[in-house]
Amino acid sequence: MKPTPLYQQLADELAALMASGTLRSGERLPSIRQTRLARGCSAATVFQAYYLLESRGLLRAAPRSGYFVAPTPIPVPMRSQPPAEARPVEVSELVFQLLGSGGHEVPAPFGSAFPSPALFPLEKLRRALVAGSRKMSPAQLTADLPGGHEELRRQISLRYLRLGLAISPDEIVLTNGALEALNLSLQALTRPGDAVLVESPGFYAALQAIERLGLRAIEIPTDAAEGADLDGLAALLRQHAPNPPKACWLMSSFQNPLGSLMPPEKKRALVALLAAHDVTLIEDDVYAELHFSTQPPSPAKAFERDGQVLHCGSFSKCLAPGYRVGWVAAGRFAPQLQRLKLSSSLGGSWPAQAALAEYLQGGGFDHHLRGLRAALAQQRDAMLAAVARHFPAGTRMTRPQGGYFLWVELPDGCDSLALHAQALAEGISLAPGPMFSARHEFDRCLRLNYGQPWTADLEHAMARLGALALACRKTSVNAWPTSRTD
Amino acid sequence: MKPTPLYQQLADELAALMASGTLRSGERLPSIRQTRLARGCSAATVFQAYYLLESRGLLRAAPRSGYFVAPTPIPVPMRSQPPAEARPVEVSELVFQLLGSGGHEVPAPFGSAFPSPALFPLEKLRRALVAGSRKMSPAQLTADLPGGHEELRRQISLRYLRLGLAISPDEIVLTNGALEALNLSLQALTRPGDAVLVESPGFYAALQAIERLGLRAIEIPTDAAEGADLDGLAALLRQHAPNPPKACWLMSSFQNPLGSLMPPEKKRALVALLAAHDVTLIEDDVYAELHFSTQPPSPAKAFERDGQVLHCGSFSKCLAPGYRVGWVAAGRFAPQLQRLKLSSSLGGSWPAQAALAEYLQGGGFDHHLRGLRAALAQQRDAMLAAVARHFPAGTRMTRPQGGYFLWVELPDGCDSLALHAQALAEGISLAPGPMFSARHEFDRCLRLNYGQPWTADLEHAMARLGALALACRKTSVNAWPTSRTD
Repeated sequence: MKPTPLYQQLADELAALMASGTLRSGERLPSIRQTRLARGCSAATVFQAYYLLESRGLLRAAPRSGYFVAPTPIPVPMRSQPPAEARPVEVSELVFQLLGSGGHEVPAPFGSAFPSPALFPLEKLRRALVAGSRKMSPAQLTADLPGGHEELRRQISLRYLRLGLAISPDEIVLTNGALEALNLSLQALTRPGDAVLVESPGFYAALQAIERLGLRAIEIPTDAAEGADLDGLAALLRQHAPNPPKACWLMSSFQNPLGSLMPPEKKRALVALLAAHDVTLIEDDVYAELHFSTQPPSPAKAFERDGQVLHCGSFSKCLAPGYRVGWVAAGRFAPQLQRLKLSSSLGGSWPAQAALAEYLQGGGFDHHLRGLRAALAQQRDAMLAAVARHFPAGTRMTRPQGGYFLWVELPDGCDSLALHAQALAEGISLAPGPMFSARHEFDRCLRLNYGQPWTADLEHAMARLGALALACRKTSVNAWPTSRTD
Repeated sequence: MKPTPLYQQLADELAALMASGTLRSGERLPSIRQTRLARGCSAATVFQAYYLLESRGLLRAAPRSGYFVAPTPIPVPMRSQPPAEARPVEVSELVFQLLGSGGHEVPAPFGSAFPSPALFPLEKLRRALVAGSRKMSPAQLTADLPGGHEELRRQISLRYLRLGLAISPDEIVLTNGALEALNLSLQALTRPGDAVLVESPGFYAALQAIERLGLRAIEIPTDAAEGADLDGLAALLRQHAPNPPKACWLMSSFQNPLGSLMPPEKKRALVALLAAHDVTLIEDDVYAELHFSTQPPSPAKAFERDGQVLHCGSFSKCLAPGYRVGWVAAGRFAPQLQRLKLSSSLGGSWPAQAALAEYLQGGGFDHHLRGLRAALAQQRDAMLAAVARHFPAGTRMTRPQGGYFLWVELPDGCDSLALHAQALAEGISLAPGPMFSARHEFDRCLRLNYGQPWTADLEHAMARLGALALACRKTSVNAWPTSRTD
């Protein structure tokens, strides 16, 4: 066994103090600086310990005043325990039905996959579109540049550099959003019948891609705060060694739907573990820019040695929804990805790529991101508080440190699909848990989107949702008291 | 056997008169009106007979002065005779190598897949991009509209209406160019191992899609002037009846690479024949707008009865290369196509879709198309004449009635791959025949692009190409006099 990392030791000690009542609800913790000096460790270690406690619901950060023991902590959902075998996925039909049921247009779109468009710099993007279109060279329009718009790839490379990653623009293949990046990455690595490791719960579009490509899924036990469980993953890799999975697809930062964040050491260990078993990692990192801490999380790709991580990113969640510009930094798989892109859809749409290149050159991206992160963090707090206020006893929830998704587990007897139907009739949408499972699991769970600026109407909608969950639970318990197996 | 259609009887009679010397080189044919009255048939029948003779190289149309017997007709290539079995395709590696060899940037880009960007209304499109961006509704950016931009789908529906087709916008799914439309259509209809009917020669990207999806190809004997041979197709359908192909993919108008145009009766018979065998037609019709006659060709989809034809179109070849906006009018498969699009790449890029909707609403499309068609027709004449002037005796070529591709078959002993390498060294590109074959066939053939405004430099490049073909032939014949098998 590896030694427990320092930050985790610290977090465990603090959690024990809270459990014993030494540290009490509402009390302030020592500052980062105090703790760093007191324990002789780095500030980063203290930060990570505090983040971990925050994501476990034990701590709350108050901007510019410090860290406080959380008032009435709602527990986080337990680590998932999926079966160990590789099995076909059957989720597409359910997902399409639910996506088609109209979760966008309702007054309380908690089921949406996007933040509010009001949070994006649409007018500045429009100006970048106009400016970019003026710089168009006609020859570019009919040239099949491998990988897509050259300046945009250079700008993406510069963003990686800020994270300490030296990624050549030649390694970057622009795609129609990260969804195409994911689909092409899976196609590059697998053949029908192959197995792929995924989180449980995991992003439904990844499950759909696995289903459509005729692959089988091996689900990794997944921690609601820290993501894929590495001991569980190691056991799966040993068990499947005779017929090893061809890829591992996961979101290491602000996972959809959990909002979990894998700490840096864990990312490093993940990359090493997969490399030791010759399993390629497809890292879907589309929420990376939406971190609430001052430091951006490093991707798992930061810890690779020989280009064996395919890192998928996108501007759809953090800057320009609807432009459909994503990418994959494909490491040593770049030539394959370029060819797959070329033969699947030739190239990306030039106006959108030119607009984003122009916008990024203009330099306002970080300013926009600071505002977006602050807004999302505030909205997260509002939604966490609303769940605590309005949801039935026995509810569990995650405490995301970034992104805009919250994962809620309702008490025994609740059914998120039934709740979805009832809530939708009242203009409230949600994303039911079974969308995120290869086996229609998580029927007590739901993903809530806190990407809308908070209003009294949304607060009221959360109150209604809580009331429906409570009623739904009673009905369910009465109707099928013995047939439920979870 | 069905009776020979009227237009074909007429064409055959005229061809016989030319063969016997009754009608001589340079002589004018009776006008459409005269012939119509004389034979008591419709003007359309005479038109079709004359088109057929023109595409066989026997007639030349002179604008506003009539039809003339062609001066020194170069024969069209013979109908292809592929083997009848279904077999895996292995062309991708060759295609990628050739595409990567730089056919765009050379001074004489005869190997390019696009016409010159100078032929497109780039400044008007740019203004449409700007105007379209002003009408953006933020909510549209995060809404997953099934099928894509609503007004653009309506505009495409209106274009169909001009051809006499009533196609609801709900049936249209916007894609990232027609290439994605083709890929999604094949995915909707097939499973790995299934067989798909294709033309021989056929578009390399379709062959690559078949290869990537693990399908097998059954090649249809294909006429260089009229496309897929229906007797040959009927025989294949009978032969494969125990294990029937799942789809037939072809280009019924201005086929890539042949430039062939299937006459309307043949399209009607094609649809009926495939329907009788329950084989779905994927009609790739991306060159439809580039017809040189006054009347646009009807697509095969015009003859369907119950929505069993998937009709793929694009703005990339006729209006806006680089915008990557195509579509499929998917008939009764529309719900499947919508779902496949949603789970493959979510939606299309909004700025490009909005720009095209704006441009089409503005009403300048037809004006642009008239100019583009006239330019391409003129360039075709220049290239046909250049082949006649400069290429070795024994050369055959097609006479496309639309599009911008010419298919040339060199005499025995020539090798288009060798010619490609030699020509490229002199700044001349071409698309070698084996790119268009599931079996690396057509090694004496090449596709030439006449999409560039004609210049003395291009004329000189054609002269060099002809000289290289002649030299190449001599070398080949001397070097391997007995080893060639074609």
